[in-house]
Amino acid sequence: MANKPKPQRAPGSESPLGDMDADTFRRHGQRALDWIAEYLDHSDRYPVMARVRPGDVRAALPAAPPEQSESFDAILDDFERVIVPGLTHWNHPGFFAYFATSGSAPGVIGELLAAALNVNAMLWRTSPAATELEALTLDWLRQLVGLPDGFEGVMYDTASMSTLHALTAAREATIPNVREQGLVGRGNLASVRVYCSEQAHSSLDKAVILLGLGQTALRKIPVDAEFRMRPEVLADAVAEDRAAGRAPMAVVATVGTTTSTSVDPVPAIARVCKAEQIWLHVDAAYAGVAAMVPNCAHILDGCDGADSVVINPHKWLFTQVDLSVLFSRRMDMVRAAFSLTPDYLRTAEADQVHNLMDTGIQLGRRFRALKLWMVLRHFGAEGIRQRLAEHMRLARLFASWVDAHDDFERLAPVPFSVVCFRAHPSGVGWDEAEFERFNTKLLEALNASGEVFLSQGGKLMGRYVIRLAIGNLRTTEQHVARAWELVQHHARELASR
Amino acid sequence: MANKPKPQRAPGSESPLGDMDADTFRRHGQRALDWIAEYLDHSDRYPVMARVRPGDVRAALPAAPPEQSESFDAILDDFERVIVPGLTHWNHPGFFAYFATSGSAPGVIGELLAAALNVNAMLWRTSPAATELEALTLDWLRQLVGLPDGFEGVMYDTASMSTLHALTAAREATIPNVREQGLVGRGNLASVRVYCSEQAHSSLDKAVILLGLGQTALRKIPVDAEFRMRPEVLADAVAEDRAAGRAPMAVVATVGTTTSTSVDPVPAIARVCKAEQIWLHVDAAYAGVAAMVPNCAHILDGCDGADSVVINPHKWLFTQVDLSVLFSRRMDMVRAAFSLTPDYLRTAEADQVHNLMDTGIQLGRRFRALKLWMVLRHFGAEGIRQRLAEHMRLARLFASWVDAHDDFERLAPVPFSVVCFRAHPSGVGWDEAEFERFNTKLLEALNASGEVFLSQGGKLMGRYVIRLAIGNLRTTEQHVARAWELVQHHARELASR
Repeated sequence: MANKPKPQRAPGSESPLGDMDADTFRRHGQRALDWIAEYLDHSDRYPVMARVRPGDVRAALPAAPPEQSESFDAILDDFERVIVPGLTHWNHPGFFAYFATSGSAPGVIGELLAAALNVNAMLWRTSPAATELEALTLDWLRQLVGLPDGFEGVMYDTASMSTLHALTAAREATIPNVREQGLVGRGNLASVRVYCSEQAHSSLDKAVILLGLGQTALRKIPVDAEFRMRPEVLADAVAEDRAAGRAPMAVVATVGTTTSTSVDPVPAIARVCKAEQIWLHVDAAYAGVAAMVPNCAHILDGCDGADSVVINPHKWLFTQVDLSVLFSRRMDMVRAAFSLTPDYLRTAEADQVHNLMDTGIQLGRRFRALKLWMVLRHFGAEGIRQRLAEHMRLARLFASWVDAHDDFERLAPVPFSVVCFRAHPSGVGWDEAEFERFNTKLLEALNASGEVFLSQGGKLMGRYVIRLAIGNLRTTEQHVARAWELVQHHARELASR
Repeated sequence: MANKPKPQRAPGSESPLGDMDADTFRRHGQRALDWIAEYLDHSDRYPVMARVRPGDVRAALPAAPPEQSESFDAILDDFERVIVPGLTHWNHPGFFAYFATSGSAPGVIGELLAAALNVNAMLWRTSPAATELEALTLDWLRQLVGLPDGFEGVMYDTASMSTLHALTAAREATIPNVREQGLVGRGNLASVRVYCSEQAHSSLDKAVILLGLGQTALRKIPVDAEFRMRPEVLADAVAEDRAAGRAPMAVVATVGTTTSTSVDPVPAIARVCKAEQIWLHVDAAYAGVAAMVPNCAHILDGCDGADSVVINPHKWLFTQVDLSVLFSRRMDMVRAAFSLTPDYLRTAEADQVHNLMDTGIQLGRRFRALKLWMVLRHFGAEGIRQRLAEHMRLARLFASWVDAHDDFERLAPVPFSVVCFRAHPSGVGWDEAEFERFNTKLLEALNASGEVFLSQGGKLMGRYVIRLAIGNLRTTEQHVARAWELVQHHARELASR
């Protein structure tokens, strides 16, 4: 042999071409950790909604990358000086916008460790513990929300992706040979239909677009006075489509719609799906975890008959983004749609394990289970139930204040932790456009306060909606009371102009 | 008003229903940080490939979730006792499998801070700094690899998703009204074709399945003796498909294929695409960053004429998973395919900013830019170039040892940091099946050593391939020499049985 390499090993020895050395990592990691402890403890120190204008953050940083290595102190200084003031603070106790997702300190530690391990769990062998901890924690979550044990779980990044995978499985189950032949130029293929309520999430539109079904494939079923899908209208729609030669592919019921958090009547919808043999997917991304609380356990009634259910721990389960869970009784169809093992990914143990790359479009998988496992153990089931119950109590409290005030009106029931309301000054003879203008200004004034951040919720029955969403671990009764005080104050101010 | 809430505020006050308190977080965060510093400094302490059997990890943990809160020390004890030994260690300097992705210590700190902030950058206003830092760091990366300034970047989780979005944009650009009408039952729609080489990544198969085109839409073009797409065969295939009434939709060229890291002739492919007006997507997920190194700058030649290019910082740019980047000159088509703003996500500044939710299927977006920004600043362009060049030097060195040894053969050129080889004991009269059996056993023996982890690469020209991939910040010449020593040792052992 021409080149005899040196066989000696120098375990742990630093190369000048290696990573940041251990002491430097300790020092800057420590600074980051201290900053975080302060930040989480005083997350109301910053205005909740960022006050920068478009382009401000980018303009404060160099337009070209650094040629030479920079000191990490300088990087962390810029982080504090430029990045933090340019953020909207999702940890602020006055964050009441969208769904008030809430990470937690145990979730931070979980992400920290996962980042250090930096495993890719595409195959079981590329990190057995990541694959198995995912299966285990999802079985814990399944037990906690009361789904039957026939449901297998898998983690994706977002509910949009969980739902996309559910609908891909439904397509695989409905359309013969779609994986091989696709949808183009197949003259004998019936038009497919996916059904959801008028209040369902926009991710469904994106999913039918991506799947090649087109937005016209999505049929939106009217809702009742409490924004719930009307199952008898669904049954009629399915019958009508069948009569017209179209193929119903899936029904998506929502447990906790985005605007009002209404709950579709899943048991009645499941009966339609069972009779018609249509894939039933339940979008419980936000509200599903509430099934852990005894008086909300019924919200997943009927889901034992569903084919798939999405629940997002990164929404209301104190787990850092991103982590969405798809539970399915028919994960075999997800695998049938996507499983595809090139030679270079074949492994000896393939028949004894599930390789995560087979359950979806993504080959690479982060170690997301670690943070969820730490969150579930740190708080315990009881601690989580108490926190969810408290958030729902606070929402009902806020709703009671709205109800009791002549100048405000509530626009939807409050089954969970979101209140839909608007200002409706007594005695004015305004039309809807005038109410909308007034409430738009009210929302702007509230968000400019820096103390609270609320979002609008589109319209319910033609009425402009302001939403107050509770879900943050740092939000207490005082913060909700302060929000109500600010709402009243700014409404009075605006009305007096 | 019936209920007068208490207006007083208690900033920073702890609720018994809140998060882990700050002191507890500091203590356990400190323990995690210390563990990580030790771990990264001695990542060769563990066997690189996990030694557990299927089911071991899960069986070591309770099957039911904890009812009560558990001490975080107990959780971290279990992490060390059960999880860590069940992992395959991607940080181990002997990790030579797949693409030897490498996170870095600055990337850990970036992920730590991002986890604490826990923002969702779906809209500009939901965290302006996250949206703008993404645009800025991707413009830095664009400059570093030498793409023209007409390319806009966006971050996704994986290359599979980046490529899916590129092909969705190509579909939008090619098929009239596909977003609204989809692909089903449109009799006048021509069959579409997507072209790639025989050596292209399996994510393309998954993408055409998902898009409703079917696997038959993917036409795999033969390669030359160095595993590069043959552009003249591509041109013929396009002409043939056009003549048959089919519609070419996209060509995917690869810069750094998965098995051999071959580089398709992008300039010639780009000429075909330009003449035929076909979307050109370049998969440079692994090798794209090598364009930073002067003597590799040419690898992205022709990409100025591409419509989209994917490069993965989480592969060979020392950035934690997940972070894949799609660069496109036609991000408007990605937005045309997906942009869809429900009422509740409308914001006043919509015409002045890009909202990340408009560039893709996912609504929620993690703050991925922070880690990349920290990595680029910590190492600096020069430091990154040096490390990439060193990895390529080590690969060439290993290749020279293979070439000089009579009992081994190299199976492909080494343009980057991956060596394809196999044992080929001199003087044996084996057929391909016998070589495969021998090399399969050799690979098993190597991976059982605990010192190295290599993967197979399917076959090249019918020959079973063992791959040695270098990309880890902790891998030095000693580790590569040790791998070669082990390869020779186990081959001798097996041959002598």
